[in-house]
Amino acid sequence: MEWRDVYADRMDLIGDTAVIELLKLAERPDVLSFAGGLPDDATFPMEAMKEVAVQVFETHGSMSLQYGPTAGYTALREWIAGRMGPVEGVTATADDIIVTTGGIEAMDLIAKTLLNPGDVIVVEAPTYLTAFSVFRCYDVDFVAVDIDDEGMRVDLLEAQLSELERRGKRAKLIYTMPTFQNPGGVTMPLERRRKLVELADRYNIPILEDHAYAELYFEHAPPPSLKALNPDGVLFVSTFSKIFGPGIRLGWIAAPPPVIAQLCQAKLGSDQCSSTLGQRIVYEYGRQGLMDSQIVLSRALYQAKRDVTLDALAEHAPPGLAWTRPDGGFYVWLTAPEGIDSTAMLAWAVEHEKVAYVAGPSFYTDGRGANQFRLCYSFLDQSLIGEGISRVCRSVAHHVERRHRDRIGV
Amino acid sequence: MEWRDVYADRMDLIGDTAVIELLKLAERPDVLSFAGGLPDDATFPMEAMKEVAVQVFETHGSMSLQYGPTAGYTALREWIAGRMGPVEGVTATADDIIVTTGGIEAMDLIAKTLLNPGDVIVVEAPTYLTAFSVFRCYDVDFVAVDIDDEGMRVDLLEAQLSELERRGKRAKLIYTMPTFQNPGGVTMPLERRRKLVELADRYNIPILEDHAYAELYFEHAPPPSLKALNPDGVLFVSTFSKIFGPGIRLGWIAAPPPVIAQLCQAKLGSDQCSSTLGQRIVYEYGRQGLMDSQIVLSRALYQAKRDVTLDALAEHAPPGLAWTRPDGGFYVWLTAPEGIDSTAMLAWAVEHEKVAYVAGPSFYTDGRGANQFRLCYSFLDQSLIGEGISRVCRSVAHHVERRHRDRIGV
Repeated sequence: MEWRDVYADRMDLIGDTAVIELLKLAERPDVLSFAGGLPDDATFPMEAMKEVAVQVFETHGSMSLQYGPTAGYTALREWIAGRMGPVEGVTATADDIIVTTGGIEAMDLIAKTLLNPGDVIVVEAPTYLTAFSVFRCYDVDFVAVDIDDEGMRVDLLEAQLSELERRGKRAKLIYTMPTFQNPGGVTMPLERRRKLVELADRYNIPILEDHAYAELYFEHAPPPSLKALNPDGVLFVSTFSKIFGPGIRLGWIAAPPPVIAQLCQAKLGSDQCSSTLGQRIVYEYGRQGLMDSQIVLSRALYQAKRDVTLDALAEHAPPGLAWTRPDGGFYVWLTAPEGIDSTAMLAWAVEHEKVAYVAGPSFYTDGRGANQFRLCYSFLDQSLIGEGISRVCRSVAHHVERRHRDRIGV
Repeated sequence: MEWRDVYADRMDLIGDTAVIELLKLAERPDVLSFAGGLPDDATFPMEAMKEVAVQVFETHGSMSLQYGPTAGYTALREWIAGRMGPVEGVTATADDIIVTTGGIEAMDLIAKTLLNPGDVIVVEAPTYLTAFSVFRCYDVDFVAVDIDDEGMRVDLLEAQLSELERRGKRAKLIYTMPTFQNPGGVTMPLERRRKLVELADRYNIPILEDHAYAELYFEHAPPPSLKALNPDGVLFVSTFSKIFGPGIRLGWIAAPPPVIAQLCQAKLGSDQCSSTLGQRIVYEYGRQGLMDSQIVLSRALYQAKRDVTLDALAEHAPPGLAWTRPDGGFYVWLTAPEGIDSTAMLAWAVEHEKVAYVAGPSFYTDGRGANQFRLCYSFLDQSLIGEGISRVCRSVAHHVERRHRDRIGV
């Protein structure tokens, strides 16, 4: 069989083996890696989780190994809906919720339900890397809107939407992570959130709000979610990956019930239903208050790691290196002086400094971000972060100096 | 937001709420249901599974809650590959295997990787209901090839492929369930299997072999899989849903390594990786021999249910009702006299006889099968199967008689 001849056209759009190769490099045991966006294993209370799993086997019985409803285990949907009031300021019932196989499947189901080939979708620049793996499968056109320290620039979005309208087109979806953005580490303030939902509403464009990190705030709770500001116009996606564990592969969408019905149709042909066993474990863990108490501990843990990261940057950064200051989540976004190539620098940093990150261009639709890169501080052992940051800073300093030498022709 | 205006075109192709509504009817507690294709809960040894889950929490530790590789947990892939030799006669290594979120995701990943809009795919007539939910999302054209008591009619397939070629087209994929077919309950003998793989190879068309029920045989092991007959040309899909439990939501694809690499790219944008916790539970359960010993018990259980079903049909069937005799799996396929409408009869049967099945047209691309229907004998308690079958037979007899009265104008 000549397999190369039979792949679908979309496979040409989604291959990004460079990233996969670099992530493999980053997994070398001698490398301090700020690359992958993994939660700290210390946030998985294994003993409590084991006890909950035993309870599920003993009290839920064989129902936990059988097929479940496509929308999800009803008790879990009710629990998620009930929690969205106090935690998110969103009024919801089980009818507003579909349980998904993680946040990625949530995004894929929304894409499947809404996007035709050639549709325009708005993303942030930079945006979540894996969002490209999802959306590119649907052969869409991207409109990228720059972020600043307050998230997506709504003034630029308005100009883009108006320009699209002039050309007789309309964006089909706005994808945004307004809170502790991946990779930017920035958060959109309330006033800009209001402007964003008002603008989307005016143009009748649904918003996909990615809420993956929002519960992991530090000093202060973030502003209300976009969903709270416009319940009918926002498809709210969140995940248990960062507040329970990614290995359980569960997330959810909160959306108006007619949209939930469509998402269920889409899910029937994606995986039929999410893990019944996993859903019942998360439900029991949540219902018993273990998730909410762990989140309090997780916030403190990640805040300490953020502090070590920022302190080390302040201490070691060479002149011309700038970075964001996250109020929650996992990421710091760095901008080196113009002319530094973060992709080439990564190969050097892994080889010579035994440190890794993700280079900037992977987060853009158009190959920008050459001098930018993302550090994830959530996974690396706290005692190693300072050393890791000093290695990153030495790598930048080395490349700044080399570039200077190249310029003056030494 | 006017949500109706924003759905993708594909959503018009995949909605089949009639089936969902009928299945809901079938879930009424007073109804004996042969509708859903669920395994018997007795095949989930809950105590052993609980012990395995505890071992995973205790010995695998926090790795079982963390992200895992997109292709799957390496030890599980090795175990699956190693088992494919003795069980399937297929030589494989971990590189030939991707772990999926059940059999449906496996099919979806293959579709995503291979199918462009307008591509032709070959399916059996009748075929697995949910395959339509998967494939219709990709806006493909179906070519349906009738089955007989020996599975897909390869002579008709050859005629169809030749006709396509004459029109300058080529099928992109052949989807078949050669063993204990859903819904037909029939199995393709070795000679026809050889002809099928030879034909597909001659036309250079990949085969998607759905192996969901093949391990659940009764008197004799089925003939070798298509994969064993042509390892390079067959994408082999199987699932742990029927040999462990559907609630774990895990399955796998065996395919040539370059195809596995493409499937991983596709999976990155579907759900990134399958449940790490689930994979480690299945691995430990399998490694300790518990899966293989349970499969022996499950075969005996389903064989006894098949026997009760066939005995009851022989006893109660009205003249003109024909049915298949499965050598394994979950299903019997029935054909009532011409003129009987199995969809209308189902509403009557649920109402008047408190019994349910799935009506024939759902299994066809073109609305055929009006006088056919599927009985699933795997889930219903064995002591109720005889009574259920007698109700089904009374429903058919009632409709045959009514049709006779209508005809002679009484």
